[in-house]
Amino acid sequence: MLSEADHSFIARHPVARLATADALGEPHVIPVCYVILGSNLYVAIDGKPKSGDPRNLKRLRNIAANPRVAVIIDHYDDDDWDRLGWLMLRGTAEIIDRGEEHGVAQNALRQRYVPYRSMALEALPVIALRIERVVRWGNVG
Amino acid sequence: MLSEADHSFIARHPVARLATADALGEPHVIPVCYVILGSNLYVAIDGKPKSGDPRNLKRLRNIAANPRVAVIIDHYDDDDWDRLGWLMLRGTAEIIDRGEEHGVAQNALRQRYVPYRSMALEALPVIALRIERVVRWGNVG
Repeated sequence: MLSEADHSFIARHPVARLATADALGEPHVIPVCYVILGSNLYVAIDGKPKSGDPRNLKRLRNIAANPRVAVIIDHYDDDDWDRLGWLMLRGTAEIIDRGEEHGVAQNALRQRYVPYRSMALEALPVIALRIERVVRWGNVG
Repeated sequence: MLSEADHSFIARHPVARLATADALGEPHVIPVCYVILGSNLYVAIDGKPKSGDPRNLKRLRNIAANPRVAVIIDHYDDDDWDRLGWLMLRGTAEIIDRGEEHGVAQNALRQRYVPYRSMALEALPVIALRIERVVRWGNVG
């Protein structure tokens, strides 16, 4: 599903943007740190919203109401628009609260992002995107 | 609606990401160049999809089916997560094909982005987001 060139592009771009929509189709989009393992993309939840319960985060409420999501990983270059490129990943998201996959995903996120190593993530959910479709545009190499 | 600090953050971040959703709530997200004039955010269409008609671009088909959109402008810093921040703008999008607002938007986009100055944009539509809601997170300063 993802080529070697895709993985190299992904490795060089530590931020993706995650788009969700609520049950009425109202979109929401935020930057996310992420890892891809096989055909799954994982995003950590690393903090609590003001209301206290992480499940109240809009991204999680949207996924619970409508699990379809899209993620974009892109490259911008001020000076050379021939070098622009992006990779869009779409599929169905699940919220994982515990278990083996939850641990594997958090370990991989800690490996990729140093700041996660000192955060107490264990009790917080992980978003798992089951990638169904990959769209490439421009210079993804 | 947008503060001076917001405008300064916007000026330093030339790429935003535009999330749309189709009539069934399936999200789509792409990177976009943009300008903000008053309470409107404008995005140029600068190329044609393979099928030839720019209206066939998924972002435009989604807006025609469901005009609700979200745009994120964010800052990432590998080394210092205390500096992360974002601005999310949400509202209703319109597709503008011609007229005064179309010309003003394309002029502003050409002023901000040098590559647009040598592109034939005039016959291509512009997306206008009527900003209704601004959400700020983290260090937007």
